[in-house]
Amino acid sequence: MPNRSVFYVSDGTGITAETFGNSILAQFAAKPRHVRRPFIDTPDKAFQVVREINETALREGKRPIVFVTLVNTEIRDIVVNANAMVMDMFRTFVEPLEAELGIKSNHRIGRFSDASKSQEYDDRIEAINFSLMHDDGQSSKNLADAEVILVGVSRSGKTPTSLYLAMQHGIKAANYPLIPEDFDRGALPSGLAPHRKKCFGLTIAPERLAQIRHERRPNSKYSAIENCRFEVAAAEQMMRREGIAWLSSTTKSIEEIATTILRDIRPDRLVY
Amino acid sequence: MPNRSVFYVSDGTGITAETFGNSILAQFAAKPRHVRRPFIDTPDKAFQVVREINETALREGKRPIVFVTLVNTEIRDIVVNANAMVMDMFRTFVEPLEAELGIKSNHRIGRFSDASKSQEYDDRIEAINFSLMHDDGQSSKNLADAEVILVGVSRSGKTPTSLYLAMQHGIKAANYPLIPEDFDRGALPSGLAPHRKKCFGLTIAPERLAQIRHERRPNSKYSAIENCRFEVAAAEQMMRREGIAWLSSTTKSIEEIATTILRDIRPDRLVY
Repeated sequence: MPNRSVFYVSDGTGITAETFGNSILAQFAAKPRHVRRPFIDTPDKAFQVVREINETALREGKRPIVFVTLVNTEIRDIVVNANAMVMDMFRTFVEPLEAELGIKSNHRIGRFSDASKSQEYDDRIEAINFSLMHDDGQSSKNLADAEVILVGVSRSGKTPTSLYLAMQHGIKAANYPLIPEDFDRGALPSGLAPHRKKCFGLTIAPERLAQIRHERRPNSKYSAIENCRFEVAAAEQMMRREGIAWLSSTTKSIEEIATTILRDIRPDRLVY
Repeated sequence: MPNRSVFYVSDGTGITAETFGNSILAQFAAKPRHVRRPFIDTPDKAFQVVREINETALREGKRPIVFVTLVNTEIRDIVVNANAMVMDMFRTFVEPLEAELGIKSNHRIGRFSDASKSQEYDDRIEAINFSLMHDDGQSSKNLADAEVILVGVSRSGKTPTSLYLAMQHGIKAANYPLIPEDFDRGALPSGLAPHRKKCFGLTIAPERLAQIRHERRPNSKYSAIENCRFEVAAAEQMMRREGIAWLSSTTKSIEEIATTILRDIRPDRLVY
């Protein structure tokens, strides 16, 4: 599909339209051109987008695919008249849901409008700051406030996972490295001992770990396969002994790791 | 809607189902109970979810709303028979798209499968590491590799925005504070001067800034409203003089800020 364009048209950021569209397009072995048109919130802007879509259809000889999240019906009616295959999540799902719930949708513009004023949003920002402050065992202060503490050897995926949990789910996620000194002592870092129940482990295949570490410090003891094998085995042994649940990050994305952790820790405010 | 449940049922992480469902539910003034059921990838698990949905319907006296992203038709057929209003994005959108494109969908399971092996995923992880290393002006090393450098006074929203750009879009986003010493000197921090074209400014209403800083350091000069007014005015004057585009983060979420920045910087690999 080299000569085919996909448009994301929204009166907000277009993030919902794009996530929605990507999840559908991921089902196809095709790489269409992506065109984002956020903040389309006046008829003038809508007509301009329609012109652009129609010109694209002519140029490519195929009508574009258009994912829309437009709450305002006047603007939506303009866009759906473009020479395109329009996928409209609001009309398809929101309107039937109104009937089911017996209430009218409030037709808010965009899921993030006024987000910056909500408690949920403030919690997310606070969680990001918390996770940054407690990245890589930087601080054991306020660890009691952590909802989860990721542990594992250096470069097992703790940092991006902590930040993802904070950013997407507002979870205060600290992370703490397990280092050779801990293995020599045969005990968790002392700052962690009181919080063992909140710990969740990440492990990784030694071969993959060596590869990742090699990019950072080539030809070092740190990245040597024998050392990676030793650290991973020692960390798994310690987690097993301490009764810490863990998973392997080797073939998992941070989204998949985070989902598994959430299922395990079941934070009170996220009903599972 | 206190006695109403919403289920997210997926054979992957359920992130797509949840984003999709949230964007639809955001249109309603209602707070249903959320129940996530990821990794439903066998008929047994599907039957178990159906039992749970049916029991919920009985208990609440209202059939639940169920958002599904199930690629496997055998599993999907089991779940759609639950006593529920089922919203199925694949059947509704993927199948018509097959007809439009004239190709079959590859029925991949989940948008993130094999994500951990893709170049795009590696770029995201690298961008997160880059943004962390270049948070708060920590390092001017490799600033040439940054795709955008956010500048602004302390607590104007630079850090969460940089991390969001990295995590969601794989953008190498550095951030650099503008501090009183810069205003006294009347010049950008020297490390930034060669990269002025990549700078993007964040500003914020002084009242909001004082409030945020107050939570951190109450009753300090740092959080005093007069000082916040001075710093914001001086930062805006500097950005104006240096020709740096900027926006106000006061009432914007990080998603909205990031979308605006992307539209402005138009990174080569994201077609706009």
